[in-house]
Formats: sequence, structure tokens, C-alpha cells
Amino acid sequence: MGMSALGGEDQILYVIKGNAGRVVPMEKLQRIDAYWRAANYLSVGQIYLLDNPLLSEPLAAEHVKPRLLGHWGTTPGLNFCFAHLNQVILERDQEMIYIAGPGHGGPAAVAHAWLEGSYSDKYPDIPQNTAGMRRLFRQFSFPGGVPSHVAPETPGSIHEGGELGYALAHAYGAAFDNPRLVVACIIGDGEAETGPLAASWHSNKFLDPARDGVVLPILHLNGYKIANPTVLSRIPEAELVKLMEGYGYRPHIVSGHEPAAMHQLMQQTLGVVFDQIAEFKDGRADRLPMIILRSPKGWTGPAEVGGVPVEGTWRSHQVPLSAVRDDASHRAMLEQWMRSYRPEELFDADGRPMPEILHLVPEGPRRMSASPHANGGEILRPLAIPDFRRYAVEVKDPAAQHSEPTRVLGAFLRDIIEANPQTFRLMGPDETASNRLGAVFEVTGRAWNAETLATDTDLAAGGRVMEVLSEHLCQGWLEGYLLTGRHGLFNCYEAFIHIVDAMFNQHAKWLDACHDIPWRRPVASLNYLLSSHVWRQDHNGFSHQDPGFLDVVVNKKAKVVRVYLPPDANTLLSVGDHCLRSRDYVNVIVAGKQPVLDLFTMDEAIVHCTRGLGIIDWASNDAGGEPDVVLACAGDVPTLETLAAAALLRRHLPDLKVRVVNVVDLMRLQPSSEHPHGMPDAEFDALFTVDKPVIFNFHGYPWLIHRLTYRRAGHANIHVRGYKEEGTTTTPFDMAMLNDIDRYHLVIDVIDRVPGLGTAAAHLRQQMLDARLHARAYTRQHGEDPADIRDWVWQR
Amino acid sequence: MGMSALGGEDQILYVIKGNAGRVVPMEKLQRIDAYWRAANYLSVGQIYLLDNPLLSEPLAAEHVKPRLLGHWGTTPGLNFCFAHLNQVILERDQEMIYIAGPGHGGPAAVAHAWLEGSYSDKYPDIPQNTAGMRRLFRQFSFPGGVPSHVAPETPGSIHEGGELGYALAHAYGAAFDNPRLVVACIIGDGEAETGPLAASWHSNKFLDPARDGVVLPILHLNGYKIANPTVLSRIPEAELVKLMEGYGYRPHIVSGHEPAAMHQLMQQTLGVVFDQIAEFKDGRADRLPMIILRSPKGWTGPAEVGGVPVEGTWRSHQVPLSAVRDDASHRAMLEQWMRSYRPEELFDADGRPMPEILHLVPEGPRRMSASPHANGGEILRPLAIPDFRRYAVEVKDPAAQHSEPTRVLGAFLRDIIEANPQTFRLMGPDETASNRLGAVFEVTGRAWNAETLATDTDLAAGGRVMEVLSEHLCQGWLEGYLLTGRHGLFNCYEAFIHIVDAMFNQHAKWLDACHDIPWRRPVASLNYLLSSHVWRQDHNGFSHQDPGFLDVVVNKKAKVVRVYLPPDANTLLSVGDHCLRSRDYVNVIVAGKQPVLDLFTMDEAIVHCTRGLGIIDWASNDAGGEPDVVLACAGDVPTLETLAAAALLRRHLPDLKVRVVNVVDLMRLQPSSEHPHGMPDAEFDALFTVDKPVIFNFHGYPWLIHRLTYRRAGHANIHVRGYKEEGTTTTPFDMAMLNDIDRYHLVIDVIDRVPGLGTAAAHLRQQMLDARLHARAYTRQHGEDPADIRDWVWQR
Repeated sequence: MGMSALGGEDQILYVIKGNAGRVVPMEKLQRIDAYWRAANYLSVGQIYLLDNPLLSEPLAAEHVKPRLLGHWGTTPGLNFCFAHLNQVILERDQEMIYIAGPGHGGPAAVAHAWLEGSYSDKYPDIPQNTAGMRRLFRQFSFPGGVPSHVAPETPGSIHEGGELGYALAHAYGAAFDNPRLVVACIIGDGEAETGPLAASWHSNKFLDPARDGVVLPILHLNGYKIANPTVLSRIPEAELVKLMEGYGYRPHIVSGHEPAAMHQLMQQTLGVVFDQIAEFKDGRADRLPMIILRSPKGWTGPAEVGGVPVEGTWRSHQVPLSAVRDDASHRAMLEQWMRSYRPEELFDADGRPMPEILHLVPEGPRRMSASPHANGGEILRPLAIPDFRRYAVEVKDPAAQHSEPTRVLGAFLRDIIEANPQTFRLMGPDETASNRLGAVFEVTGRAWNAETLATDTDLAAGGRVMEVLSEHLCQGWLEGYLLTGRHGLFNCYEAFIHIVDAMFNQHAKWLDACHDIPWRRPVASLNYLLSSHVWRQDHNGFSHQDPGFLDVVVNKKAKVVRVYLPPDANTLLSVGDHCLRSRDYVNVIVAGKQPVLDLFTMDEAIVHCTRGLGIIDWASNDAGGEPDVVLACAGDVPTLETLAAAALLRRHLPDLKVRVVNVVDLMRLQPSSEHPHGMPDAEFDALFTVDKPVIFNFHGYPWLIHRLTYRRAGHANIHVRGYKEEGTTTTPFDMAMLNDIDRYHLVIDVIDRVPGLGTAAAHLRQQMLDARLHARAYTRQHGEDPADIRDWVWQR
Repeated sequence: MGMSALGGEDQILYVIKGNAGRVVPMEKLQRIDAYWRAANYLSVGQIYLLDNPLLSEPLAAEHVKPRLLGHWGTTPGLNFCFAHLNQVILERDQEMIYIAGPGHGGPAAVAHAWLEGSYSDKYPDIPQNTAGMRRLFRQFSFPGGVPSHVAPETPGSIHEGGELGYALAHAYGAAFDNPRLVVACIIGDGEAETGPLAASWHSNKFLDPARDGVVLPILHLNGYKIANPTVLSRIPEAELVKLMEGYGYRPHIVSGHEPAAMHQLMQQTLGVVFDQIAEFKDGRADRLPMIILRSPKGWTGPAEVGGVPVEGTWRSHQVPLSAVRDDASHRAMLEQWMRSYRPEELFDADGRPMPEILHLVPEGPRRMSASPHANGGEILRPLAIPDFRRYAVEVKDPAAQHSEPTRVLGAFLRDIIEANPQTFRLMGPDETASNRLGAVFEVTGRAWNAETLATDTDLAAGGRVMEVLSEHLCQGWLEGYLLTGRHGLFNCYEAFIHIVDAMFNQHAKWLDACHDIPWRRPVASLNYLLSSHVWRQDHNGFSHQDPGFLDVVVNKKAKVVRVYLPPDANTLLSVGDHCLRSRDYVNVIVAGKQPVLDLFTMDEAIVHCTRGLGIIDWASNDAGGEPDVVLACAGDVPTLETLAAAALLRRHLPDLKVRVVNVVDLMRLQPSSEHPHGMPDAEFDALFTVDKPVIFNFHGYPWLIHRLTYRRAGHANIHVRGYKEEGTTTTPFDMAMLNDIDRYHLVIDVIDRVPGLGTAAAHLRQQMLDARLHARAYTRQHGEDPADIRDWVWQR
């Protein structure tokens, strides 16, 4: 079984390499061992048992779950860490939370929360007694029960760990601006092979000892992933130590399998480690410690099953004994395994944990499973937001002047940062200045704790702007920051936000699940500002042109996702203010950094954004009546082209009744049955008509509009233009022409779809074709767009 | 200017740390320097000039491009590497290609290819003379010209580097099974911050010195990314060295800014480095060397502009002089900068490179810009594929027995591996066994060159299976392997393939561009096998349930993407064979690993897959006539539920004419105008009808079917069921019910949509509601699905 009792000798002496040994008294270790055994017992019980939780009768087939769904391999290691960290919390009155990177070790986190009493606090139907233990076991990975991972349902968790790679980034996100907090982050050696995790080690260069808390990485090497050895468990130890030192940490090794020795070694090591953390916090050391914990996979589980080794191998990754219900010998092994933890010493006859185990449980919010940091909504304070109207661009006439929307937003963000010096961060992969949010540097710098040179600008320890060339880190840090009750915005090139598609999915699923868990208090929304978007990546070319993140986003639940495409500076301000005040959403804002025409006064912008979409009166000539054609648009560049097309039509075909509709809130297009922002059919039909052609000029891939509108009565008349995967390094207007979203093509689309327009239209159609040819030739000759297009010179 | 001439002294002595200095003769260094100056000159010319390429007249405004789109900062460093590597190729007759991680340094790669003559080979309209140089300059980042990055248009490139992070994984992919090849991989310090790159360093644990080539990482620290210092340039050098040693490399530092010294140091270092590579290849050393190259960003460019430092800072990232066309002083600085390279020494009066520069150009395919490895289609040999029919499951009666499709495919893959011992690799993030492809381990192991233990199984140096817990590495390795002319398959959990959404996008764009470049020969398709899919992640829960990769895939060009959902083992074999033979596509196959019913004999499967979709006769009762309802399905679990629903309908409503249509090739649903596989409207209408209800049970998010079919006549009648983001840890049938794709709900859908079915239908509807309630209650009580559902017991 691998489990051996403590005791016999009064003391065991282990010396930590490079440190004087400090022997931890036996009684402490025995208490920790009891807690560990209790957690292991509860973990095995969750994986296997439907009933007979205390083994008060011999284990029978009907006590065992028919489907065994859970992961044992990592679980005893997690339990080991939790037990030892509790001892530290008690001794040092340390504020601490944990991140369980191997989140499939869900039984461990649940067991820990139950032992700490916080599980019963959140779920009173699962008390700390035999009936509660029975329900605790039964519900795990069971229909109608709780997930197999450290999911939102688990008290104390901010990290499900379903998809591996994000543990350490989440941990740092939680630590930023939490100066008294230690985030213990257990990193599985499988997870350590992922890219995002590998990059996350360097997060320490962005941590300010004065303003931020501390992350304690515990690299848990149990040697195997699902079916393979792991890289970091099989490189020479000297190389591994260099790697950790190269990442900027002070590594400590805790290695072994004999419990008594391991308890002594872990407590000794934690003593040194927390002393080193204190040195780091008060400036006596400039490197943080970390722990390399080597312990067997499936530690204390069955050593062998059917003649092959299980403990210490990949075979213990999920359930070491798979035939327990049908095979009496397996069942006997399970019973022997569970009894090896000596449950009679751990729980009283009523199933309550014994006092010596409860002795290791910290008080109230000091319990990691009850920390308010791990239920961030509990401590979330509203952002102090200045009146966004103060930053408005003055617009006397629509479409008569230009602004750079993100530059205007930058001033707003600057003052938000100033007003919230400890609860707001702006993330970006080295694109904050490129995205023209540079005003923020008037009041803060980029967080930076590595070397600085005289030529550097805008770097600062504790800076509110976090820039690293890793979208994964930006996303992971922000998620950790938000889930612990703070606010933020992630600005990114549009194409490269796909790098975090999978992370977005996981976060959206987390929020989705939280909506149904009453004790999870609402957290600030995750806000994306996607700038340097597809239509203005003419300079970087095809690889930088991809508006498909929106398609990924709208796959997630309507109660979680919101998409906004403000067409000018004032609408961006209004949308930005709205998003920063919202809770529990993922908001995606797509807005350009290049100069675009100012279309709305601030008051108009507020009305427009509140409605989410609306007619642009001055660009329409249907005078409140029924139009002949609707020109719809969403996104800044498509809107400008649509307005230009409308102007051409009004000038050349004055009898044609054109209605221009701009969409800011994309979710408005859906039926109200599909999305909370969805528009009732009657309103939609009134705006878009049920029988007139609609030429919809869209920022993204065109089918998204079809997808959102396919249930509408007039859907068959909606003709969508958008990005159709044509692009290269060229001019902005050439990009529009390559994808047929340009003004000339829109006019042609109208002429081709409105019947009976006559010869004037035929003539105009030819003119438009000629204009396209001319623009194309001009561009290829001069390397820039024709002046009239470049300068947006056109008649309103 | 930072540029200083070589010469004066006859020799400069530099000693490489830890190695005896070997002085490289001056004449070699002068030749390298001349090559470097020529490449730098050509790079600046590309960024700035429309005309006057040799500066044969004073630089005037009209010689300058109106829009300056390019990146200077990284370019001189790339040129420096290329020049020095050429010297090594010449001296050692070394087979070598390069990967330019900072692919935005496109001008460098183009300059290099032009100097090597391969540019003119591929593009005869751009010869090695003044006219050619003029066109070379003009076309760069110019409408109708070439992209600003090291795009497919660039000879010698297999890596665009538009999105950063994948350079080193691509390099290793290229090196596998190319035992004589060295892949020089230049990694920018910005890129080094990304997760995928950070993980890629450990690729050396998967490299076999005997069978594989070698990667030479050159970590190019120029100190800044777009606007920020970089992490690796600002950590203490001792820490950086430990980091590289921790990654398992022997680091060498080349640091400075004075060209003469740097040339000497780089050549000396490369001498040592290639000796160490030789030691590694013949087993005298077990670690590969790598180079840390520290040189100024924008090296040899303007030192200062407008009183602020530019060379050596982030300000030289793009164009150091931005107002050259309008500002005469900027123009003078540009001219001075270009003349500092002394073009009169580099090019003759006709614009041809001088003989001493051409002297540094290797012969024919030894040129990195002309290596067949970098145009893999040139050396691609067809895969030896055994007859897939040999692996067929015998099917006497459809739907009478079960198979695990991926297990059946595994045997086919095993024999492909055996028949192609050096040109096929199977990638997976530690899921090959979990995905039940374990038969492959009968003939090969997992590639592994780190420590092995007695408990390990199926590990082997040079193994054909590559497993690492990083989807990024699997994807990056496979891309590099395919682009250098080999074959492969990536098997992955469906949900987590989203991790490489962005990499897929980049690869699809690469293939898309290659379709239009005649000299780029077709390469093997990138094949995904997505198993452990959304419907059978009941055990891992919500975080593992996401079929949205298909939505990302279909955003890319129809000429590049293919999606297949074979419903059983034999159709999977047929699809697998087809995909492995194809070229220049991305094929996505979604297929389960759990037992599903065998539906098709091998002959039927071939017909069905060739058609891409078709009626399942035995499940239909419309007898060739017009049905009352069409039950369509795509995906294994949705197909089984559809067949069960059809059986219920046939039994309980025998007068209802039901047609069951199964879709294997999803692209068939699109109009033929949209996709090469698209079905003509007449055929589609004949199959799906234009006026009867179609209940489409789909594997993925339902709107994808609407998106593909919205132009079809009968679209308004198509009602799609699919994954609607409901899930948790539960049973398989509960997953189906949560999302309404279950048999009972499908029957209800039919009853609700076919008019005039009468009281029998109303009765059946209630039965179905009751059956759902019963199944749900049973599941929650017993923890597994009712036996009839579990065992697929139903009447055909």
C-alpha cells in the first residue's frame, strides 16, 4: 500500500539541502499525517462509494458506483500539500489560497473543503457527519452531483484545471495587488509541459514585492501524465534546478515516498520557504522560493494490481482498481486500501472528523476553502469610474471630422487607473501604445521588476499596465485578477486573440457554471478591446487578418457573452463605460485605432448604444417611411464604407429610398428568445423590413450575421458582406475591395437587388465598376489609396 | 550609424568563454561583412525605395514610398545570422535551412534569397541587376507586391512568423527524420516570451541523434519588442545561462555591437558550435549547443532621430525614419544610412552583386533559400498505404454489433507506420492510448530521449509516436514536418484542439497562399483526428465539452479545409485513407473511441464516403418516394440517436414516411458555388426536399448547419439539434438529453413539425416525455444509463 504509520521513533532527522535542519516535532507531523489520511480516505470514497462511507459493514458490490469516474493519481499529492499548508497558515496566521493545477484531482479539493467545514457551510445538505459523508461520496462525478474537477462548485477554487496550462498565470493574477496573500500553486508535471505554463514562470518579473502578494509554485513531479513519463521528472536533477534558477526562483526539493520522512521534509522545507518569502517581502531577498515535490503517482494507493505496478506509475492516473463492483478481489483490495488510512482514528462514530484533525483547520476566512479571495465577488468593490461624457469628442456635424477611437478611450482609461490605484489593471501583449491607449502612461507605467536601462520609458514596479508578449499570460493574469475580486481590460490585436480561444472557452464555462451557484458572488466581467483589427492590418498582411474570435465567442452561452462594435469614438466611450460596470460577462469590444469619422454626439452615442442599433437619420432618405433598401453595418470600417455608399446612392439615385442602420450591440440581432439582448421580432422587422433587400456590411466573417438572423422573417433578403479571407500587405481600401465591402461594391449590391431602378442605375453600376478599377490601378501605381478615399472626402 | 568598417588591424583576437580562441582570418570576415552590408542595404531599400535603387542619383521624394510598411529592428540581426551561416555551409558542406522566428523581418529573407540568386530563379522578372533590384524594392509591402513578412512567397521560408511563438517547434518538426539537416532557428526575444516557444525548448528530449537532424537555436536578444524591453534580455546573464542549461542546451554567448568584433566572435562561436553538433551526432556529447546573440535592435541604422536614441531601442522596431518622403532632413539621413553600407563596393554598375559577395553563396540546393527541404512538396513521396479494406469490420447486418472506430483505425495506422518508417509521425498530447490507437505500439514506441525507468512502456528513441502534453508542440512539430515534405496525423481531445486555433489559422493561411504560388509544390495535408469528443466527455465534465473547432475551421478558405464525421469504424477507415492521400488541405476528422454500432459494410462505407452523404435505406421507410420528414445526422452519437428515433417512429407511427440521411463530409452541405465539395442545389433538394421538415441532429454547435445550408431552398424547414453548451460530469445519454439530441426528443421534434399526425402521435409524444423523465430519474438513482440505452438495444 505504500502507506506506513508514523511513530516508533520519537524524532526523525532530515536535513534540507543547503539549509540547517530544523526538526519539526513529531506531534505536529502526526496531526498532519492524520489530516492527510483523512483527506485521502475521503478522496477514495468519493471516487468509489455510493454507500457504506465509514466501512461500518463489509464492502459490498452495491456500495460501489457502477461507473468509476475520477482521477486518483494526483490526489494524494494535492492532499499532502493542503495538509502541510494548513500547518503553515496556523503557525504564521498566513492569508493563503491554493490553485490546484491538476484540477482533475477534484476529490482532494472537495475532501479538504469538507474537512475544513466550508463545504457544509456552502452546502448544508452535506454536513460533517455520516449522512453528509455518504452524500459527499455519492454526488462526486455522479449524475445530478458535482463535477470530477476542481470546478466552480468547489469552495476555495478559482481554477478548474480542466484544460491544463493556466495554473501559474492564474496564481500570479490572484497575487497582484494582494500584498498579504500567498497563492500556493500546485503545478503537475504534465501541465508543466504546456506552453502557457512554461511562459508563466517568468511572471515573477512583473511582481512587485511591495504592492503584490506572493506565489509559491509547488512543482509536483509524480513522474507520469496519462500514459507517459513527463519531461521535467526525467531530466537530471541538476538540470531541473538550473531551470528553476534560470526562471528566477530559489528551488527546494522534497523528494521521497515514505510518509514519515516526507512529512518531516515538507514541514522543514515550508519553514525555510516561508522565511524566504518574508525576506522577499521586506527586500532582503530578490528571488522567490519554489518547491519541487517528488512523490509517487497514486501515492498510498494499491502498489500492484493484477501483477503490474500501479502506485508510482501512470496506471494510477484515473482509477487504480477498475472492476471493483464486479470483482470481489478488487473490492477486497479497495477495502484494504481504504482501511489502511485507519478511518476509525479519523472520524467518530457519527462520521465527524476527530478533534485532532479539526485542530489543523484554520479559523473562518483563513481556511483556504473559505477565503474570500477565492470567491472574489464577496470582496469586489465597484470600480470608481469618472463620467465618460467628460472624454467625449465634440461633434457639431456628423461625419465632418476624425478621431482615433482608442486614443479617446485611452484618456478615460487613464483616469480610471488613477481613481482605482489598486483594483484595475490593463493587460496587453506589448500593444498598449500601438493600440493608441498611450494616455495611460501619464499616470502609471508598465509593471516591471527586471533590469531597467536609461533608454527605457514608462516602466514601473507595480505599474497598472501589464505587457508581455504572451496573450496566454495576459489572459491568465486577468482571469486570476478578476476571479479574486478586481477589475481589468485586455487590449489585443484582433487576429491574435485567437491564441486564447481555449482560455476564453474555459473562462466562459466557469462564469456559466457560476451563474447557477448562489454562493458564487458576481465578479467583474472579462473585457476585451480588440483593436488593430482585420481591416487595418493592411500593413502586416494576411497572417494578421482574422476577425473569427467573434464566432468563437458567440458559441458560448447567451447569458455570458456580449459583443460590441462601436463605430466611432463616442460610441466606444459609452460601450466601454457599460462594459466596465458589468458583472459576470465576457464583453468583446472591437474598435479601431486609426482615424475614423465622428458620427455621433455624446448624447446621440448614449442613445445609440443603449438601443444597441438604430437608423442613422442623416445618412438615410426614407424619411420615416418604408425604404427601398436597407444598408446595415457593424464595425467602424464597414460603417464608413456603408455611409459612403449611401451618399453615392443619394446623389446618383435620389429617388431610391435608402435606410442606413448601424449595429453596435451584435447580440441585438438575435431573437429575444435566444439572447437577453435579443430584439423582439416586431422591432426587428420594423427596422430591417420583412421584404426589402438588406445589404449588411459586417466587420467579421459574413455568416455570423446569417447565424444571428436566420430566424427573422426577412432573412432571405439579407445579403451580407464581410471578411472572406482575402488579404495581403496592401492599402486599407484595397483590403475593402478585395473582400467586396467597399462603397462601390455596396452600391452595385443595391443596384443588383432592388428591382426596377432603370438606366440611371445601370449607368451608376458601370461607374462603380470603373471606380473600383481606377482605385485598384491607382493603388498599385502609387502605393496608397486615392486621395478622396484616404481623406474620407465625400458628401454627406 | 553604429556601422564601422573592418580592417586596419590584420587580426582581432577574441576568446570565446570556455573555449580556446580560434582566430578567424580577416579575409573571411571581410567577405561576411560585405555580404551583411549588401543584405542590409537591400533590406533598407525594400522598406523605403520606389526607385533609384543604387542611389545613382541624389535621393528625391519621388524615390520614396508614400506608405512605409516594414520592420527594420530585427532585420540586421537576421542578415548577420544568414551571412555567417552561409560561411559554415560553405566550409562544412552543411545541409541547412533557417527559420526566421521574427518573420516580420521579411526584408532580410528576401534580400538573402535575392543575393543567393534563388529569388530570381523563382521570379525571373526580378533578376540580379538594377532593374531587378528596383522591382525588388518596389514590390515589398506594396499593393500587388509581396507581404512584409517571411511569407510563403519568400523562397527558403517554411515559417511566416506573423503570429509569434512557433519558430522552434517548426524547426524541430523540420529536423525530425532529416539526419543530415541542421535547422538554424532564430528566436526573437519577444517571441521567447510566448508560451509555445517557452515549451518548445524541451523538444530536444524528443530528438534522436541517430535518426533526426539538429536544431541550432539562436536566441537573438536585441532587447526590445514593439515598445517594451524583453524579459530574457533583462535577466542576469548567469540566470539566462542557467535557463538554457536547464532546458538542456550548451549556451554560447555572442554579444556586442562593433561589427568587426562581432564577426570574429560569431565565426569563432559557430566553429565551436558545429563541432559540438558533430559531437552530438556521433554520440560524444548528449547536449546540443545554442547561441545567445546580443546585438542592438536596428543595428547599423540611425543612432538618433530628432534627439532621441533609435538604434538599440524599441524605436527602431518598424521604420526608424518615418517622414522620409516629406522631410528632406529625414531623406538625407536615409541616404547617409544607405550609403554607409558602401553600395559601390557591393554591386556593380548593373546592380549585380560583386563576385566577393557571390563567393559566399553556396551551390544550388545548399543555398538555404533554395533548399528543397524548405519547399517540401519537391521531395514529398507518396505515403505507402496498405489497402484500408483489409482492416474493415465485417458487417453482416447493419446496427447489429459494435466497434470502437479509433481502435479499428489504430491497426491501419500501425501498418502505415511500419510501411513508412521515416516519413510518417503520429502526434498527440499524451492521448494516443486514451484515444484507443494503441495498436501502433505494436510496431513503434513514443519518441523519448530522456531518462527511462523499468516501469516505462512503449518508449523508444526515434519512435513514430510523439506525445507531449502540449497541443502547441504537437501542432508545431507536425507543421514543420509536413512543410518539409513528410506525412502525419494529430490525434487530440476535441475540446482541447481549440488550444491551437490560432496555429491552425496560420497554417491554413499559409496553405491558402501557397495555392497561388506555382513553385510551391503540394505538401501532405494536415490531418486532425478529434476523438474523446464532446458527447463522450461525460466523465471529465463541462470543461472538456466543446465541438467549436469546426466553426473555426470553416472560416478558412474552402480550397483549404475539409471536415469529416464518419459515424462508424468502416467509414472512419475510408475517410482516413482519403485524408492521408490528400495534399495541401487541412482535414478534420471527428470520430469517437467508444463502441458504436457498425452501420456500413466496407463497400457501403466507401460508396457513402465517396458521396459524402446519403440515405440510410434500412432506417428509412419512404421507399424511394417523397418522405414526410427527413431525419438528418452528422457525427457518431447524433447518428445513433437519429437511428433510434427513426426506429421509434417506424414502430409507433408506421404510416409516417421517414427518410434518414447521414452526412459524412460536412462540406457537401454547402452550395457548389461555395465549396469544391458543395452539392448542387438540385441534388440537395432531392435529398432533403424543399418543403418537408428536416430534423438535423448534429455533432457540433447547431448553427454551423444553418450557416452551411442557409442558401438552400428548404432552409426554413431545417431544424437543427446539436450541442448547446449544456454539460457536466454525468452519463452519455444524460449529455444527449441535456442538449435535446436524444432519440426521444427527436421523435418529439418530428411530431411537433409534421402536421396532421393525429392522436397516435399525441400519445407517442407523451410517451417520449415520460421516457426522458424515466431515463433522467434512473440515471440519477443508479449513476448509469438505463440498460436498453447503454447496450443500444433497439429494433431496427
